[in-house]
Amino acid sequence: MREKNEVENITLLGKKNVKYNYDYCPEILETFVNKHPDRDYWVKFNCPEFTSLCPITGQPDFATIYISYIPDKIMVESKSLKLYLVSFRNHGDFHEDVVNIIMDDLIKLMQPRYIEIWGKFLPRGGISIDPYVNYGRPNTKYEKIAQQRFVQHDMAGMDKIDNR
Amino acid sequence: MREKNEVENITLLGKKNVKYNYDYCPEILETFVNKHPDRDYWVKFNCPEFTSLCPITGQPDFATIYISYIPDKIMVESKSLKLYLVSFRNHGDFHEDVVNIIMDDLIKLMQPRYIEIWGKFLPRGGISIDPYVNYGRPNTKYEKIAQQRFVQHDMAGMDKIDNR
Amino acid sequence: MREKNEVENITLLGKKNVKYNYDYCPEILETFVNKHPDRDYWVKFNCPEFTSLCPITGQPDFATIYISYIPDKIMVESKSLKLYLVSFRNHGDFHEDVVNIIMDDLIKLMQPRYIEIWGKFLPRGGISIDPYVNYGRPNTKYEKIAQQRFVQHDMAGMDKIDNR
Amino acid sequence: MREKNEVENITLLGKKNVKYNYDYCPEILETFVNKHPDRDYWVKFNCPEFTSLCPITGQPDFATIYISYIPDKIMVESKSLKLYLVSFRNHGDFHEDVVNIIMDDLIKLMQPRYIEIWGKFLPRGGISIDPYVNYGRPNTKYEKIAQQRFVQHDMAGMDKIDNR
Amino acid sequence: MREKNEVENITLLGKKNVKYNYDYCPEILETFVNKHPDRDYWVKFNCPEFTSLCPITGQPDFATIYISYIPDKIMVESKSLKLYLVSFRNHGDFHEDVVNIIMDDLIKLMQPRYIEIWGKFLPRGGISIDPYVNYGRPNTKYEKIAQQRFVQHDMAGMDKIDNR
Amino acid sequence: MREKNEVENITLLGKKNVKYNYDYCPEILETFVNKHPDRDYWVKFNCPEFTSLCPITGQPDFATIYISYIPDKIMVESKSLKLYLVSFRNHGDFHEDVVNIIMDDLIKLMQPRYIEIWGKFLPRGGISIDPYVNYGRPNTKYEKIAQQRFVQHDMAGMDKIDNR
Amino acid sequence: MREKNEVENITLLGKKNVKYNYDYCPEILETFVNKHPDRDYWVKFNCPEFTSLCPITGQPDFATIYISYIPDKIMVESKSLKLYLVSFRNHGDFHEDVVNIIMDDLIKLMQPRYIEIWGKFLPRGGISIDPYVNYGRPNTKYEKIAQQRFVQHDMAGMDKIDNR
Amino acid sequence: MREKNEVENITLLGKKNVKYNYDYCPEILETFVNKHPDRDYWVKFNCPEFTSLCPITGQPDFATIYISYIPDKIMVESKSLKLYLVSFRNHGDFHEDVVNIIMDDLIKLMQPRYIEIWGKFLPRGGISIDPYVNYGRPNTKYEKIAQQRFVQHDMAGMDKIDNR
Amino acid sequence: MREKNEVENITLLGKKNVKYNYDYCPEILETFVNKHPDRDYWVKFNCPEFTSLCPITGQPDFATIYISYIPDKIMVESKSLKLYLVSFRNHGDFHEDVVNIIMDDLIKLMQPRYIEIWGKFLPRGGISIDPYVNYGRPNTKYEKIAQQRFVQHDMAGMDKIDNR
Amino acid sequence: MREKNEVENITLLGKKNVKYNYDYCPEILETFVNKHPDRDYWVKFNCPEFTSLCPITGQPDFATIYISYIPDKIMVESKSLKLYLVSFRNHGDFHEDVVNIIMDDLIKLMQPRYIEIWGKFLPRGGISIDPYVNYGRPNTKYEKIAQQRFVQHDMAGMDKIDNR
Ligand SMILES: [Ca+2]
Ligand SMILES: [Ca+2]
Ligand SMILES: [Ca+2]
Ligand SMILES: [Ca+2]
Ligand SMILES: [Ca+2]
Ligand SMILES: [Ca+2]
Ligand SMILES: [Ca+2]
Ligand SMILES: [Ca+2]
Ligand SMILES: [Ca+2]
Ligand SMILES: [Ca+2]
Ligand SMILES: [Ca+2]
Ligand SMILES: [Ca+2]
Ligand SMILES: [Ca+2]
Ligand SMILES: [Ca+2]
Ligand SMILES: [Ca+2]
Ligand SMILES: [Ca+2]
Repeated sequence: MREKNEVENITLLGKKNVKYNYDYCPEILETFVNKHPDRDYWVKFNCPEFTSLCPITGQPDFATIYISYIPDKIMVESKSLKLYLVSFRNHGDFHEDVVNIIMDDLIKLMQPRYIEIWGKFLPRGGISIDPYVNYGRPNTKYEKIAQQRFVQHDMAGMDKIDNR
Repeated sequence: MREKNEVENITLLGKKNVKYNYDYCPEILETFVNKHPDRDYWVKFNCPEFTSLCPITGQPDFATIYISYIPDKIMVESKSLKLYLVSFRNHGDFHEDVVNIIMDDLIKLMQPRYIEIWGKFLPRGGISIDPYVNYGRPNTKYEKIAQQRFVQHDMAGMDKIDNR
Repeated sequence: MREKNEVENITLLGKKNVKYNYDYCPEILETFVNKHPDRDYWVKFNCPEFTSLCPITGQPDFATIYISYIPDKIMVESKSLKLYLVSFRNHGDFHEDVVNIIMDDLIKLMQPRYIEIWGKFLPRGGISIDPYVNYGRPNTKYEKIAQQRFVQHDMAGMDKIDNR
Repeated sequence: MREKNEVENITLLGKKNVKYNYDYCPEILETFVNKHPDRDYWVKFNCPEFTSLCPITGQPDFATIYISYIPDKIMVESKSLKLYLVSFRNHGDFHEDVVNIIMDDLIKLMQPRYIEIWGKFLPRGGISIDPYVNYGRPNTKYEKIAQQRFVQHDMAGMDKIDNR
Repeated sequence: MREKNEVENITLLGKKNVKYNYDYCPEILETFVNKHPDRDYWVKFNCPEFTSLCPITGQPDFATIYISYIPDKIMVESKSLKLYLVSFRNHGDFHEDVVNIIMDDLIKLMQPRYIEIWGKFLPRGGISIDPYVNYGRPNTKYEKIAQQRFVQHDMAGMDKIDNR
Repeated sequence: MREKNEVENITLLGKKNVKYNYDYCPEILETFVNKHPDRDYWVKFNCPEFTSLCPITGQPDFATIYISYIPDKIMVESKSLKLYLVSFRNHGDFHEDVVNIIMDDLIKLMQPRYIEIWGKFLPRGGISIDPYVNYGRPNTKYEKIAQQRFVQHDMAGMDKIDNR
Repeated sequence: MREKNEVENITLLGKKNVKYNYDYCPEILETFVNKHPDRDYWVKFNCPEFTSLCPITGQPDFATIYISYIPDKIMVESKSLKLYLVSFRNHGDFHEDVVNIIMDDLIKLMQPRYIEIWGKFLPRGGISIDPYVNYGRPNTKYEKIAQQRFVQHDMAGMDKIDNR
Repeated sequence: MREKNEVENITLLGKKNVKYNYDYCPEILETFVNKHPDRDYWVKFNCPEFTSLCPITGQPDFATIYISYIPDKIMVESKSLKLYLVSFRNHGDFHEDVVNIIMDDLIKLMQPRYIEIWGKFLPRGGISIDPYVNYGRPNTKYEKIAQQRFVQHDMAGMDKIDNR
Repeated sequence: MREKNEVENITLLGKKNVKYNYDYCPEILETFVNKHPDRDYWVKFNCPEFTSLCPITGQPDFATIYISYIPDKIMVESKSLKLYLVSFRNHGDFHEDVVNIIMDDLIKLMQPRYIEIWGKFLPRGGISIDPYVNYGRPNTKYEKIAQQRFVQHDMAGMDKIDNR
Repeated sequence: MREKNEVENITLLGKKNVKYNYDYCPEILETFVNKHPDRDYWVKFNCPEFTSLCPITGQPDFATIYISYIPDKIMVESKSLKLYLVSFRNHGDFHEDVVNIIMDDLIKLMQPRYIEIWGKFLPRGGISIDPYVNYGRPNTKYEKIAQQRFVQHDMAGMDKIDNR
């Protein structure tokens, strides 16, 4: 089990009366230390409660965001990740930009070895958009992993979409 | 969030009384600038509302069209893409030709690094046809990506089809 | 097996070069004689290829139409039913009106003992609309069947809709 | 376990070199005695391998046939039922007629207390047809069961049909 | 097709630059006239994009809202319904209260013969809540319909929930 | 929590080296006392591991058996129920007989207020058989429950069977 | 939105450092006032995270618990319901007893007009058990609702169980 | 759209009174010219209506046949493909032979760059058989594609088969 | 179609009164000649009716066995394969041993170029076990195929297991 | 079948009154000898009944744990594995730590050639976490297998997560 000092950076998990910020605020993100830094492993977040605004029309957009990464020294704490994603609620951006922004913020936060973000948005005008972006630390094997996974993206088990 | 000048080419999204053209009109397609051109990423459109006509019998055909691409400098705007796909409504062509035409038009529009089109049509005479075509910019790594994805096409998660 | 004279009204089924009419034309509907008029039985048509236009915006709408009826003396022939449904292709009407019109036309055509129409449309603006209408011949037990089925409509196996 | 004399009418089950007859032959049906005639119970056959011909165009039709009945004194043996259904293979009839014929033959064979037949055919021209017919022995409570089940037919768990 | 005067109350559908209001505003709802008032029929809206706030913690809640009604003289227009549901975005209320409020507003708007609202919310603390409320016009047969549907609510095809 | 004396008849649950009997042995069934006899409630067993033999050909048959009952004073213990069902392993009987036998044995064992058995067998010769039988204590309201459930049997959520 | 005084009994929702009690503690349940007491409506809780112990063998059992009720004057708060269900974690009881206990506790807590509990447990020895119990306030119409729902329990959309 | 001369070999599509041949007749296959011969692309046929006979017992077999190919100069026309597949109706062969024969016929017809055939048959005696065969033009890159796809056959999204 | 002499080794298919042996008997396996030995192709058997005994407790185990192979000169006949699998019925062995034994027997029988066996067993104690074993003829390319498929085993479309 | 001496280390399987330990106890794990050590094969455990505690809040967490390994000389016995997993019941640790601990314990127990652990946890705060870790024996081909599988992790058949 984790010692007190191993989780001392965590201020939001289990906290009462967390304030929800509905304007984009990457500074809310918190981390904890990776206890298995000698080993590559995957952590994946499934986030079906993402909503933002269309920057042109102002109408709400909805998506499920999937985030997978290989941690290095520190890891993002999931309650703070939730609050970060919630902060897109009243923020306007294109689907394609949203996944790029999320990835940039998480790279900056925890400098992961590898990370990928897949957004699956609900349709507008009968068409839905699913952007995907990934990253491997430059000049390491993780950069090659990023290239390999990018090339094979979405080839298996492609969603059947019928808008119902 | 995007600045005004970053979306100035977009005239259809959020516009009132857009006129729907039901004759094939690739000129309706519009683009906007890619804000992340230094990075490869995927954009996928799921389009379950495609319909065209059989060039021999005139009867309507129905399909779901999946479009995935890696943008370069400019990107297709989704509302104009919708209007473009709608313009096949009273146009007659074979299933196999339709996906080739869509890909040619999108390559011409935005010169993507990579693009692929997968059409899944409803059955006629108990048989359904699913054509697939892809493209990588010649003499770049994207041409190799195209070859690799082409070879492995439809090997994973193949649809179970029972015509019900 | 049916005798020649039992199918003499059928001119479209198996016919070459049927002309597809894309303007609403109920007159294309054809019938054949019910060989089991002494018995109540159900006939159901599943029609996933329905498309019409929005009367306000002109944009295409898509639906699956389910038609169930109890025949009386004559029955609608399915090829002509297909051509009839196709004739809504370039016709504009609200979802709620479409199912009422289809039912009125089929009642006029074959005076069924009972009939019901259920339309399940694809979403617009994140909301999909599913209108349902039914009819039992007035002052017969079929009117009571209509009332009973109407009261219990859509209570069982309700569709899970998530717009994907 | 059943005694020899309780299954003496069964000649086809487990028999070598049964001859398959591909012309409609109701006389192939066999029965065995119901050992629980004092009790109402249901027997249901699921038959996904049904095929017949279109009487107009000659093209093959495919269906899953569901048969449910309440036995009286004798019961249909399943191997002979299979051979009976196989005998429609090169026989032409409308979907609506097929289910009526099957029901008439089974009523004649075993005079069940109640029986119902539901055919779910594959689409032709984008439309599939699902006829349903039922029967309760006249002037008994089974006639009322037939009426009640008929009225509520297909209200629950209606199939979602998208022709794929 | 609908005449101009039959849709003259509709100001939002197809309009450019509709302003999205994120504070509860029932006054945005619009109606159009029912062209089939002599007939009972069902209209159902599937709304998977609903989000509101928890009144205690302020955290976002997500739900799919299903609305079914039998129209009387006027009917709610779907684009305005969308804007109305969007207006809960930054509004806080308990799940159980939300469905009651929506129903009250729609009754006030169009005095339907019958209406029902079913909310299916995403889980909090491992438990999800699905409130359901319905209404039939008092002292009419619709009140009895409401009672009958209420008694049988959710007995068929109950969702399997595993929080994934 | 149950006291020792409330479970004293249970000898098989948690016992080491239970001997599996593969010849039909209803005497293995055990019971425990119903602690809520003043209240009607349902207990259902889902048993997907049932196998017996065909009495004519000797080949193994497989089924899922669903058992639902309303207990009276005593209830069947599930471990002993498992051993009872296992005892059909090398026993030969028709599908239709098997469900009747199971019901008779359980009625004899615990005299339930109500009980029903539904067997869903794997196909032989392309056809699968699903027998169903039920019982309500004669001359009580449970007899009426049996009649009502029997009449409505299998009308909702009917299995889609395609033999794959 | 709810006023402060309308939620003053709620001490656990949004509270920091709630202590999880793993021994059965019905006293942890909290309530809030029903703002719509003049109207019957349904509230349903889906609880897939239930676990308790077998009273004979001590091994853990797992279930999804579904709770549906019609509130009267007060309603159970969902965070306290969660903590109550968690308190079965190290408590031993038979499946059949667990649902009876939960119902008794919730009746005592909030005296609902109607309530029902359905437990769907994971298999032991290849058999799974799904107990169901319900209650309507005696000598009111809710008692009749309980009887009607009890009679029709689990007839629609029955789960297909194959233990995988 | 295709010019007249581009489809002049097509005689069956849209033709009235096509005669259905139920004895194996590969000569019925027709072709049309590939308009995109400079590009590799995939065409896939989903054929769920295949039936043939067992060469030993004479009993009917049923399968879904999936055909995928990369066209060269000419392409098989789908109506003629249907008639070809129909011609197996009264023909007897082993499952393993059927897919080999279909592939040989299609190679001979259109000399494709690559082709693969996957048959998924319904069970006999509780076991179903799924043969798969593929081909790449010898001494070209397509031969290597064939080898690579062969090695990875059926590793992803393997069907779950339970014979129901 | 196959000539008589091409199937002369087949004695069980279509035979009357085959005796079912419930003790492990690999000698019952029969073969027929491969008519396409110049070509690599896949044959897959789906076998959902496998049952054996636990060697420690004697309780029955159930599994679906998937067998895929590339034939060389001879091929296993499916009726004899069924009887072979049936012969495990009263035989006790660990899950992990069963798949090894089946593979060894089939290698010995027909010396295939490649073969793989995947068993998916039902859970015991809440855990299910899925062993997988494969083989490629030593010192051939098939040995490499075996290594490649082994490395990638079960990475795609992994079953979701929830024991219901 | 296994000899007595081949299973002599197994003390828990089939044992009466096994004591369930709810505090983390890796020492409970038992092994048996691998009878096929000359061959690489896969063994996979599906474990949907895993529960532990959150180390910060103390609230219960739930997961399905998938364990796949290639055995070397000894193999973990499944009953003891169950008891080991049960011992996390009242133990607190982060999701990411749990899978690392399980893998470390199983490596220490049986020194497998390869092993991987995938945890799929239920959501907290609308987000679910799925950690994955794997291992191949250092300086063997199994280390390379680990690297290859790690790179391709979760690319095929990705779960669709909607928290319902
Ligand atoms: Ca969908
Ligand atoms: Ca859907
Ligand atoms: Ca399908
Ligand atoms: Ca959906
Ligand atoms: Ca669909
Ligand atoms: Ca379908
Ligand atoms: Ca779920
Ligand atoms: Ca889900
Ligand atoms: Ca199917
Ligand atoms: Ca199946
Ligand atoms: Ca299952
Ligand atoms: Ca299954
Ligand atoms: Ca199936
Ligand atoms: Ca599940
Ligand atoms: Ca399952
Ligand atoms: Ca879902």
